[in-house]
Amino acid sequence: MEANSTVSDLNSHHDHCVEITMEVHKVVPPPHRSTLQKLKTRLKETFFPDDPLRQFKGQTGKMRFILGAQYVFPILQWGTNYSLQLLKSDVVSGLTIASLAIPQGISYAKLANLPPIVGLYSSFVPPLVYAVLGSSRDLAVGPVSIASLIMGSMLREEVSPSNDPLLFLQLAFSSTFFAGVFQASLGILRLGFIIDFLSKATLIGFMAGAAIIVSLQQLKALLGIKNFTKQMGLVPVLSSVFHRKNEWSWQTILMGVCFLVVLLLARHVSMRRPKLFWVSAGAPLASVILATLLVFAFKAQNHGISVIGKLQQGLNPPSWNMLQFHGSYLGLVMKTGLITGIISLTEGIAVGRTFAALKNYQVDGNKEMIAIGMMNIVGSSTSCYVTTGAFSRSAVNHNAGAKTAVSNIIMAVTVMVTLLFLMPLFQYTPNVILGAIIVTAVVGLIDIPAAYYIWKIDKFDFLVMLCAFFGVIFVSVQGGLAIAVGLSIFKILMQITRPKTVMVGNIPGTNIYRNIHHYKEATGVPGFLILSIESPINFANTTYLNERILRWIEDYEAEQDTKKQSSLRFVVLDLSAVSSIDTSGVSLFKELRKAVEKKGIELVLVNPLGEVMEKLQRADEARDLSRPDCLFLTVGEAVASLISTIKGQSSTHI
Amino acid sequence: MEANSTVSDLNSHHDHCVEITMEVHKVVPPPHRSTLQKLKTRLKETFFPDDPLRQFKGQTGKMRFILGAQYVFPILQWGTNYSLQLLKSDVVSGLTIASLAIPQGISYAKLANLPPIVGLYSSFVPPLVYAVLGSSRDLAVGPVSIASLIMGSMLREEVSPSNDPLLFLQLAFSSTFFAGVFQASLGILRLGFIIDFLSKATLIGFMAGAAIIVSLQQLKALLGIKNFTKQMGLVPVLSSVFHRKNEWSWQTILMGVCFLVVLLLARHVSMRRPKLFWVSAGAPLASVILATLLVFAFKAQNHGISVIGKLQQGLNPPSWNMLQFHGSYLGLVMKTGLITGIISLTEGIAVGRTFAALKNYQVDGNKEMIAIGMMNIVGSSTSCYVTTGAFSRSAVNHNAGAKTAVSNIIMAVTVMVTLLFLMPLFQYTPNVILGAIIVTAVVGLIDIPAAYYIWKIDKFDFLVMLCAFFGVIFVSVQGGLAIAVGLSIFKILMQITRPKTVMVGNIPGTNIYRNIHHYKEATGVPGFLILSIESPINFANTTYLNERILRWIEDYEAEQDTKKQSSLRFVVLDLSAVSSIDTSGVSLFKELRKAVEKKGIELVLVNPLGEVMEKLQRADEARDLSRPDCLFLTVGEAVASLISTIKGQSSTHI
Repeated sequence: MEANSTVSDLNSHHDHCVEITMEVHKVVPPPHRSTLQKLKTRLKETFFPDDPLRQFKGQTGKMRFILGAQYVFPILQWGTNYSLQLLKSDVVSGLTIASLAIPQGISYAKLANLPPIVGLYSSFVPPLVYAVLGSSRDLAVGPVSIASLIMGSMLREEVSPSNDPLLFLQLAFSSTFFAGVFQASLGILRLGFIIDFLSKATLIGFMAGAAIIVSLQQLKALLGIKNFTKQMGLVPVLSSVFHRKNEWSWQTILMGVCFLVVLLLARHVSMRRPKLFWVSAGAPLASVILATLLVFAFKAQNHGISVIGKLQQGLNPPSWNMLQFHGSYLGLVMKTGLITGIISLTEGIAVGRTFAALKNYQVDGNKEMIAIGMMNIVGSSTSCYVTTGAFSRSAVNHNAGAKTAVSNIIMAVTVMVTLLFLMPLFQYTPNVILGAIIVTAVVGLIDIPAAYYIWKIDKFDFLVMLCAFFGVIFVSVQGGLAIAVGLSIFKILMQITRPKTVMVGNIPGTNIYRNIHHYKEATGVPGFLILSIESPINFANTTYLNERILRWIEDYEAEQDTKKQSSLRFVVLDLSAVSSIDTSGVSLFKELRKAVEKKGIELVLVNPLGEVMEKLQRADEARDLSRPDCLFLTVGEAVASLISTIKGQSSTHI
Repeated sequence: MEANSTVSDLNSHHDHCVEITMEVHKVVPPPHRSTLQKLKTRLKETFFPDDPLRQFKGQTGKMRFILGAQYVFPILQWGTNYSLQLLKSDVVSGLTIASLAIPQGISYAKLANLPPIVGLYSSFVPPLVYAVLGSSRDLAVGPVSIASLIMGSMLREEVSPSNDPLLFLQLAFSSTFFAGVFQASLGILRLGFIIDFLSKATLIGFMAGAAIIVSLQQLKALLGIKNFTKQMGLVPVLSSVFHRKNEWSWQTILMGVCFLVVLLLARHVSMRRPKLFWVSAGAPLASVILATLLVFAFKAQNHGISVIGKLQQGLNPPSWNMLQFHGSYLGLVMKTGLITGIISLTEGIAVGRTFAALKNYQVDGNKEMIAIGMMNIVGSSTSCYVTTGAFSRSAVNHNAGAKTAVSNIIMAVTVMVTLLFLMPLFQYTPNVILGAIIVTAVVGLIDIPAAYYIWKIDKFDFLVMLCAFFGVIFVSVQGGLAIAVGLSIFKILMQITRPKTVMVGNIPGTNIYRNIHHYKEATGVPGFLILSIESPINFANTTYLNERILRWIEDYEAEQDTKKQSSLRFVVLDLSAVSSIDTSGVSLFKELRKAVEKKGIELVLVNPLGEVMEKLQRADEARDLSRPDCLFLTVGEAVASLISTIKGQSSTHI
């Protein structure tokens, strides 16, 4: 009786289906490829997704050499077409970024606990190297705030920059060397995708946290405190600042507040009207000049306002003899190099990609890494510390109309002139103005609209962002980063460990099958449980999938008892979204098959993709899983075909 | 001109398509659910995929209490229906596993550098605890070789068991305590899925490597060497063994070889004929008795054959006062507890699941973890070291007809009798026989057919297996495990970082679209590039996907130039396999859209799943991506609809 009613239920559905699909298409294994071929494809997709050798195809030997040279030195590519017209634009933008680079260079060097002049050295050699090797047309190269902060704080944990300045400088150059080696090797080994693991959410949280940490450090200069804490966290810095109220200098604070307001206003104006980019670009240098003149005029250095003091003159001295490749600090400099390297690389690549997308040209990530790495390797032996493409300066460069990397050369030449002739002018520059410049620069790193956007779209990403932010503020710069990256990877692993299985149903009048909890019109087919598995199947989720699918079956059976539905005959697994499988995954189907067969249910697989089909067939010597009557190309064909089989059986039985 | 030819190409295809699909179905966002509801579902699927509270639904208070008690103490469930019939089976199997457990207990304790009697203690209390709390009917509980090896080797790195035996014992009990706490907390916190990260391939390689390491350690007993190396690796052990040839004792070697042959033969017989399980089950005890008698009769202890010596008598003394919760060794015991805990848990759960699947009952992973953890916590305060369900002993238990956990109780009682009365008999048991017993037991851990199966199906899994194997042999037991787990996770991450994008084409005469490199009959639609993305889209792969999709477009355009095909009008992305997306993924579509629009190409999305649709809509305020003319439910409908649009446009133009 019950079997009959089932069949009639099924029949009514069946009549409806056959109108749409008559022919049943076979699932075939993909064309045979050897293990070596597969490995080659896999390696190519992993390391050469951009197919860099494509351009060499079908070229003559000489042409190949030229193309190769142009590939390694992009300057050969754009240099040949360089014109006076382009030079004009580049000179304007080069001078503009130089006016920003000089005060920022001095400020960031102080942030890294290095002598101010190292910041200028670092704005001279690396831009020249980048102009030859780099492929971005907008990147303005030099020291950046976050990498300076990280390097300074990591090295300061073990060596005091005031007690042992020479050792500190040696360690900074050595860290820069290792950062460069690490960056260049990522590019050469084509492992550039590693920086992709710093998600946008991580970076936004991290940047905002770092901006706050950097600003807190500026309280020393802005309040005129002499004995500032060596710690970086929010709590220790604030408590130390308020415990030393007696050291606050009102002259310094007044000057700081005035210039900070001016600089922030200038920034605001330029943000509102990008054409007025020169307002914010020129403001720091103008402020430095004005502040220096004020100090000089009023002899303010005698009234509690601290100044930079005498600076060395002359170009970068060589520093390769200062690099440390052995000794007790090797671990420290390698670790510092690794972290500053990856952070500055992320910033440089992101900046390059952003402006390339705006101007619609391509930036090759791996090549950029080699360029940035070489820049730091050369820099480390010419008294420069870690440099990369800075976001704020590149934006100014772009707005000022930079056309090629020549703007970097112009900037370097301007810095060179400064180094050779203008250094004595900085003697009376007050430290407070440098603090104000840094605060103005890092305020832009706090991106509230982006944070809100993330909150709106993905709550977990927002959590990652918060972890990065609070981790940086309350734990440590590296700690916050590690927590956020760990959490992002954990999320990916959790998605793999607990993949979605959804019940799909037929959209009436079609042979389309979709999630019945998403498309309300989709209805289940009586006697069928159709599940779609939405993830690769591997060791991390086979146990879960096994239990979850059995629970789907139990749930169906429980419902069938209460609703007097027709009993379950087929479990159809739609594998369209299972992009890969491993040995554990293959055994899942075998186990499932055994388990459901004991209940008199048949397991049917639909649309296994190439790799999955291949592995199933290799594992399935008894041809249990790849029998034509339990393997179909679409869910619609599976349902139609299985219903007609039942109909055939029941009509012969009657 | 060219546009016309394109349209006519498209038209011919179009006429063909409309026959199949006329109506266009809209993609709708899934029903609204609040963030809290989503979080609840996500947490439930992550931590309670088995829905453990299901059975309590709709029960009265008293019934709930009974069900709850039965849930915590499974003995209450099966105990009520216990019969004499079942007892008979359990007595037979209990005695059988006891005859195996006694010599193995003594041997494994020596493997862990512990006094032999600790092995017997550990075969008495834990089985009783498990009988009350455990839900497997076949698991035979006691010390196991690999956990013993790991604990012994990890503790020996810092404390010498011969110079400071009391401290070593304290550390062993403390490690056992932490292993238990760790195991129980995994169960209570429902984090049992962590052991799933030890894939089958990892375990096969690891087990085989460990078997070799364990066997190498037995060379001490089998060759009669007195000053054995403290190292574990293949190379140092073998070189030390051959450097001490003068210590080899021919009497010991002769005895060892004879008994080894007998034991291996017995194992072979039982493997061939499972009904003769008692041959291999009884052989170790028989060998111990025979060897002891031989030594006693010939006074062989005076002829170079070392014997166990006097053993303590009596039941387990309490040991809670020996647990160390502070001091310099806390880190060591916690680390040892963690690693031995996770390894023994993996073995116990795997064994339980295997036999549950054979007899068709369910084992609750998290509950089992609590049972095994409690067993070790109780054990650590009653002079037991780490125990779990042993594979070989459980197989014997199963073959001997065990019906319930009562067989564990029978075994415990037998061990108790031994402890109370039979200990003096072991005084003359030669160490060589214990070595032979261990080697025979661990030989079974080397599973060549399974390794071959993995090689056949998945070469990468095979690589993971080899890494685990060689890592254990040449690096260290923990090192090999860490390498293999790291590699497995790396593979998952690589799959996410480099997801497959495949070009799909129409299977003629249908509206089915499949990979054109898999289904040779599938053909592209002129003017359309239809790509299927087979992975979640997130921060780790957006950069790659962006570049890869643009390269697909370039390739299409290059081919179109050579083959004079109609120019590319639409890029259709089939998102059926994109199970989730994050903020980076959402911005991918926006960037792609901008990039292709510059080329006059339109981006069309097909079948975004619930979560993806929702996030796209939330991010897409301008409704650029979710306009009805670039969002379709199936590829077929997208193609048909877009072609008819073009046709309409071109006919009005003409």
